[in-house]
Amino acid sequence: MTAWSKIMSLIQDYQQIILLLHEKPDGDCLGSALALGLYLQGEGFQPLIYHPEKINREFSFLPGQDLIKYYTKQVLPEKPVIAVDCAAENRLLYTLPQNVPIINIDHHQSNTFFGDYNLVEPEAAAAGEIIFRLLQNAQKSISAEIATCLYVAVATDTGYFRHSSTTAETFFIAGKLLNYGAAVDLIREHLFEKRPFKELKIIKIALDKLQFAQEKRIVWTALSYEDLAANGLLNIDTEKIISLLRSVAGVQVALVFKELEPRKIKVSLRGKQGYDVNLLAQHFNGGGHAQAAGCSLEGNLKESVNLVIKKTADLLEKL
Amino acid sequence: MTAWSKIMSLIQDYQQIILLLHEKPDGDCLGSALALGLYLQGEGFQPLIYHPEKINREFSFLPGQDLIKYYTKQVLPEKPVIAVDCAAENRLLYTLPQNVPIINIDHHQSNTFFGDYNLVEPEAAAAGEIIFRLLQNAQKSISAEIATCLYVAVATDTGYFRHSSTTAETFFIAGKLLNYGAAVDLIREHLFEKRPFKELKIIKIALDKLQFAQEKRIVWTALSYEDLAANGLLNIDTEKIISLLRSVAGVQVALVFKELEPRKIKVSLRGKQGYDVNLLAQHFNGGGHAQAAGCSLEGNLKESVNLVIKKTADLLEKL
Repeated sequence: MTAWSKIMSLIQDYQQIILLLHEKPDGDCLGSALALGLYLQGEGFQPLIYHPEKINREFSFLPGQDLIKYYTKQVLPEKPVIAVDCAAENRLLYTLPQNVPIINIDHHQSNTFFGDYNLVEPEAAAAGEIIFRLLQNAQKSISAEIATCLYVAVATDTGYFRHSSTTAETFFIAGKLLNYGAAVDLIREHLFEKRPFKELKIIKIALDKLQFAQEKRIVWTALSYEDLAANGLLNIDTEKIISLLRSVAGVQVALVFKELEPRKIKVSLRGKQGYDVNLLAQHFNGGGHAQAAGCSLEGNLKESVNLVIKKTADLLEKL
Repeated sequence: MTAWSKIMSLIQDYQQIILLLHEKPDGDCLGSALALGLYLQGEGFQPLIYHPEKINREFSFLPGQDLIKYYTKQVLPEKPVIAVDCAAENRLLYTLPQNVPIINIDHHQSNTFFGDYNLVEPEAAAAGEIIFRLLQNAQKSISAEIATCLYVAVATDTGYFRHSSTTAETFFIAGKLLNYGAAVDLIREHLFEKRPFKELKIIKIALDKLQFAQEKRIVWTALSYEDLAANGLLNIDTEKIISLLRSVAGVQVALVFKELEPRKIKVSLRGKQGYDVNLLAQHFNGGGHAQAAGCSLEGNLKESVNLVIKKTADLLEKL
C-alpha cells in the first residue's frame, strides 16, 4: 500500500479535513500544507488549515490562502487531522480530537510519532519533499499552484539548496516542480526583492553589537526590547543576520538573542558541521536541527546571554 | 557529429591544449575550465590553463589547480586554444595564435563567435552547463573532481539557483553532479563558511552610509579610499552588500561605489526585472548583464556618485 493510498483509506469516509501547522510556520510548513490542501480540494475534499496566529506576510503570495482558517479556540472539531512539518504534539497549538484519524507528515529527526499514521522521513530535506513524493504516489498531475507551494517549501528549508540536507533527489524534485509550472519569478520577487527596509536597519544594529567568545569560535549579538521597539523592529526577520555571523571563518556557533517582550528572549542558534546546536537548544527546552535550532528564555537579557554563551562554550570544550 | 566529436576532430593531432579564462575569472569560468582540463587530461592530452593574474584565493580548493600556468607574456605559443566563458577576443588577455584551431565555449548573449568552432549557448545558465553536456556527449563517466568543478560553476553563476537563468535542466544537472560525487561539503565550507570577518565590517560601514534617491527607487552607498584603506578593506568582496541593497522593496536599481585607489572608483550596479543596468554601465564604458553590471570612473568620489546617480535617475525616468 502506498503512503497516499494509506492516507486515502484513513480519510475516505470524511469530507472535511483539518491541516495543522506548527507555531510561526516557515516556508516549508506553510508551502507543504497549502500544496496538500490544494491537492485534497482537487480530490473533492474540503480541507482547511486551522491556525491561531497571523501568517507571516512574506508568504501571502502563495496560492491557496483561502484554505487558511484563523481559529483561536484550543479544541478542534472532530474531523481528521493532518499535521505537516510538526515534530511533536505540543507544537500543534491545539488539542487533538480523540475519535478521528490523526496523520503526521514530517521530516524532523525528533518526531514523536503522535499520529495514527506517521509518514516521517528524517532524510528528507523538507516536508515539501515528502508531500511531493506523496502526490506523485497518487499518480495525478501536479498543478502549477501546487508546484509553486512545494518549490517554496523545498527552496526555503534547504536555504535555497545550500544546506547539507540538499540531496540529488532535492534537485531532481526542484527541476520537476519547474516543469510543473512553479512560479519562480513570483517567488523570487516576493522572497528576495520585497524585503522591508527595516531588515537593513536590524542588520546594522546587530553588527554594531556583535561580540565574540571562546577565541572567536562563538559569535553572537543581542537585541534588547528597547532597541527593537524603538526602531519598530519587533517583527523583522533576523535570518540574514545569523547567516552572516555563521559565515565568518573560524566561527563554529553563531547566536542571535532577541528580547521580543521585556524579559522574554528568543535565541536563534546556528552551528557548522560537527557542532550540534539542537542539543544546546534542547538544554533550554528548545529544539530544531543539528545546524539550526532555537529556544526561548525568560529573564534579564544580559543574564540570559551569559547563561547561553556559557553553555555553548561548555559544549565546544567537550568536542 | 556531436559537439564533443567536433572538438576532438579539431584537437586530435595535438597533445598540448591551451585553455583560456576571462579577466578576474569567477566560479563559472574557472570551474568550467578546470573541469574541461581534467577531462582532457584523462583523455591523454596535456591541457594547461594559461592566465596572467593571481587566481581568487576563494577558489583555491578546486581540484586541478596544477593545470593553471601563470603566464604573463602577451603572445601564446602555437597550440590549440579553448576559451571558456569568454564573450569576446578582447576578454582573453592574450593574442590568439594564428595557425591552430580556436574553440570558443560560452553562454554570453553578446559572444562574438571568434573561434574556428563556436559552442555558444546563451540559454545555458552557466558555461558549466555547456561543459557538462559536452562531457556527457563524450559518453564517459564524470569523475568526482570534475563534478566538484562543474557544481561550483553552475551554483555560483546562478546565485545558488536563485537567478532567473536557472531552469529545470540546471537543477537536473546539479542533481547528477551530486550523484557523480561533487564535494558539496567542501564547496559549502569554502564558499560560505570561511568568509573573512572584514566582510561584516564593510557591510556595517556600507549600511552606515546608505542613501536613497528618486523616491527610494535608487539605493546607493559609497566607500571612500580612506574608509577602505584605514580598515584594510580594499580587497574585501562587496557582493553581499549590493544584494542586500537590491533586496529592499521598491528599490529598482542598487549601486555600490568603491574608491579602490584615490580618485579611481569602481561602481557595481544591480537592477530588478525591467531595469537594464548594463545600458547604464555601458554609458560609462562598463558592461555586464541586464541585472548585474559594473563600470569604473576616475575623479572625485562625490562628483562621480552625482554623475552616475543622475544618469540612473534619467534612465528610470524614461521607463
